[in-house]
Amino acid sequence: MIRHSMSHLTVHVPLDQGRAYDILIGRGLIDRAGARVAALGARAAVIVTDETVAGLYGARLREALEAAGLRSGVVAVAPGEASKSYATYAAVCDGLLAHKVERGDLVVAAGGGVVGDLAGFAAATLRRGVRFVQVPTTLLAQVDSSVGGKTGINSPHGKNLIGAFHQPRLVLADTSTLDTLSAREMRAGYAEVAKYGLIDDAGFFDWCEANWRGIFDGGAARDDAVAACCRAKAGVVVRDEREDGERALLNLGHTFGHALERLTAYDSARLVHGEGVAIGLALAFRFSARLGLCAGQDAGRVANHLAMVGLPTTLQAVPGGCGSAEALLEAMSQDKKVKDGALTFILARGIGQSFIAPGIDGAEVRAFLEDELRAG
Amino acid sequence: MIRHSMSHLTVHVPLDQGRAYDILIGRGLIDRAGARVAALGARAAVIVTDETVAGLYGARLREALEAAGLRSGVVAVAPGEASKSYATYAAVCDGLLAHKVERGDLVVAAGGGVVGDLAGFAAATLRRGVRFVQVPTTLLAQVDSSVGGKTGINSPHGKNLIGAFHQPRLVLADTSTLDTLSAREMRAGYAEVAKYGLIDDAGFFDWCEANWRGIFDGGAARDDAVAACCRAKAGVVVRDEREDGERALLNLGHTFGHALERLTAYDSARLVHGEGVAIGLALAFRFSARLGLCAGQDAGRVANHLAMVGLPTTLQAVPGGCGSAEALLEAMSQDKKVKDGALTFILARGIGQSFIAPGIDGAEVRAFLEDELRAG
Ligand SMILES: NC(=O)c1ccc[n+]([C@@H]2O[C@H](COP(=O)([O-])OP(=O)(O)OC[C@H]3O[C@@H](n4cnc5c(N)ncnc54)[C@H](O)[C@@H]3O)[C@@H](O)[C@H]2O)c1
Ligand SMILES: NC(=O)c1ccc[n+]([C@@H]2O[C@H](COP(=O)([O-])OP(=O)(O)OC[C@H]3O[C@@H](n4cnc5c(N)ncnc54)[C@H](O)[C@@H]3O)[C@@H](O)[C@H]2O)c1
Repeated sequence: MIRHSMSHLTVHVPLDQGRAYDILIGRGLIDRAGARVAALGARAAVIVTDETVAGLYGARLREALEAAGLRSGVVAVAPGEASKSYATYAAVCDGLLAHKVERGDLVVAAGGGVVGDLAGFAAATLRRGVRFVQVPTTLLAQVDSSVGGKTGINSPHGKNLIGAFHQPRLVLADTSTLDTLSAREMRAGYAEVAKYGLIDDAGFFDWCEANWRGIFDGGAARDDAVAACCRAKAGVVVRDEREDGERALLNLGHTFGHALERLTAYDSARLVHGEGVAIGLALAFRFSARLGLCAGQDAGRVANHLAMVGLPTTLQAVPGGCGSAEALLEAMSQDKKVKDGALTFILARGIGQSFIAPGIDGAEVRAFLEDELRAG
Repeated sequence: MIRHSMSHLTVHVPLDQGRAYDILIGRGLIDRAGARVAALGARAAVIVTDETVAGLYGARLREALEAAGLRSGVVAVAPGEASKSYATYAAVCDGLLAHKVERGDLVVAAGGGVVGDLAGFAAATLRRGVRFVQVPTTLLAQVDSSVGGKTGINSPHGKNLIGAFHQPRLVLADTSTLDTLSAREMRAGYAEVAKYGLIDDAGFFDWCEANWRGIFDGGAARDDAVAACCRAKAGVVVRDEREDGERALLNLGHTFGHALERLTAYDSARLVHGEGVAIGLALAFRFSARLGLCAGQDAGRVANHLAMVGLPTTLQAVPGGCGSAEALLEAMSQDKKVKDGALTFILARGIGQSFIAPGIDGAEVRAFLEDELRAG
């Protein structure tokens, strides 16, 4: 079931202006990173990571780079969302400068979405931009955050408010690194996997229902799923890099999800991003059904599948509660542009049939949330 | 001599991908900023400035913006180079967010090069990029830093090491604001004006020799000079936006100048940027003459003109001294890429005939600097 360690899948991201790049997906890619990274042409490739990932994979990655003749080094930050801060950003930039990273050199972001966003932003702005390579080590990072070029940090005013678009030159998704990921982080990442089926690929959602155990077990299904997600995201990104339109579909489940993260104060002990997304996906489908857009059966199927893999699907599932309908609505209004009391949502006409729905009446959302809270 | 307040000069910067913009140059433009900025289409235009400029022009600029129907506000930082720091950058970003600057809104950088670089970088990265307008109020900012899209801050590892390329959508150079600039800052900016003639426009240097008093007095010569410099810089920037080649010529005088700034610990009481550039220009020509590249007469003419306007032209002129030839060489090596002990300089075959000179032997430079230090 586990494929030969020298094989991998490739997803090409055909961006213009010399920015096209490959996403390589397979087991053992970290140990084979040297030649791939060295082929980009650089003297140094300095790793940015978090302390957990540094302990698990830092030495191997560094050895692989140095074996290929690259000067390397490691800048490690504390694990967790709190590292996406101004202070850690400054520390990463100064760490890279201390390692004498020049314009032609490379930054290698090795870790989850936190490290990818932080290191990517440092790379985007160090010496007004140096190239970077993503080595995502969480399922969420492999299927979502490492692809697409959004980088950034948080402000006290909100998540991801500071950042840059900066595309990686290469993504190496070593799927064997997920073997050490906690079951909870694995499930959280899986919510994003399922999301791609729900957006516009009913066939992929069918496949997920049949194969999700293989993704968790680390068999060929894992690599296939990561590749399918990367292909889907890369397609959207190439068509709408700056999120002027279609890219917004990737936010399916995220309007509700972000509000829940905000109301649980981004406390990962209570809720991690993917769990918020899972609840958000279930809510988006139930809300679509309530509005008569989508069959109730589809909404049920979505919630059933997420629950099957162990993800939360209701507001009641948030440990410590998630506040009132009013508080949720208020938190959602901060997230999305509100025009005269109307919100923009991503809704669905069925599995694989999502669409951007502007002009959703706030009162309608509140009534829905009140019923959801009562249902508990 | 002073032209009618409703007239201005325009320099167009024809960048591609919808990034073309105008530089407007004239007296009184601040009071007429409203319509121009509002024409860019935004709901809010929030001013970033320093406390000195805020006191002089903040209220007028804000009134002009609000009279045109724009919501405005002011984020003011302490004056001086120390504000180009990570901490002030974070404070500016958070200040803009507190003023609810959204994706479609504008940041207005009003001040010298410090404010332009800092606010430009904040605009480049706020919400992954919002548009910005430059309202330069120093001569240096009007002829140099506000044009070209280089934005950034300093790291403890060196100047301008963190930043982004982010072009303004409009530059409003109100030349009447220079009336309140100190004579010393005015002279410092003038070093950059003269530089444009020395790079590739002997005719403009002739004109400067004849008209420099008009630039200082605020007559038509001032606007003409600012426009000529902007035209020259815009031309270079359009041909070589990312400094892969020709743009390096703008560094004439800067390799020596940056080394002097570093050795005086960026203490503006001792040396401001333009003074370092003035000494650097004189040194670049004397060094070119010593290498037999350029007539000694040209080198003399450069130094004479700079001295005439009151600028320093020798290493001895640095208050408190500038260290040994060895220290200067070491500081220069940090600035420019050094390959096997050889440095890249901008040298000249005569006035208006500068060129990029790679492979200059460090020993040759040291000997030159030793002679310069002895000459005192
Ligand atoms: N840029 C984008 O497009 C984008 C998209 C989605 C999410 N994100 C961002 O991604 C972040 C979340 O990413 P995440 O879920 O990967 O979180 P994360 O980076 O915090 O990683 C989760 C935890 O797993 C640990 N970890 C990582 N790899 C491991 C491994 N192989 N084995 C064991 N432990 C490992 C980390 O140390 C961390 O404690 C958020 O900040 C979110 O905003 C960005
Ligand atoms: N981005 C670029 O391409 C570029 C090019 C050259 C220089 N720079 C940067 O520009 C900075 C230097 O800019 P600067 O020389 O304008 O310095 P500055 O911004 O510090 O201004 C100098 C002083 O003049 C004051 N001031 C500004 N306008 C005034 C006015 N109208 N009346 C009275 N006082 C006024 C300021 O408060 C400050 O104290 C440096 O940080 C340098 O790195 C950038």
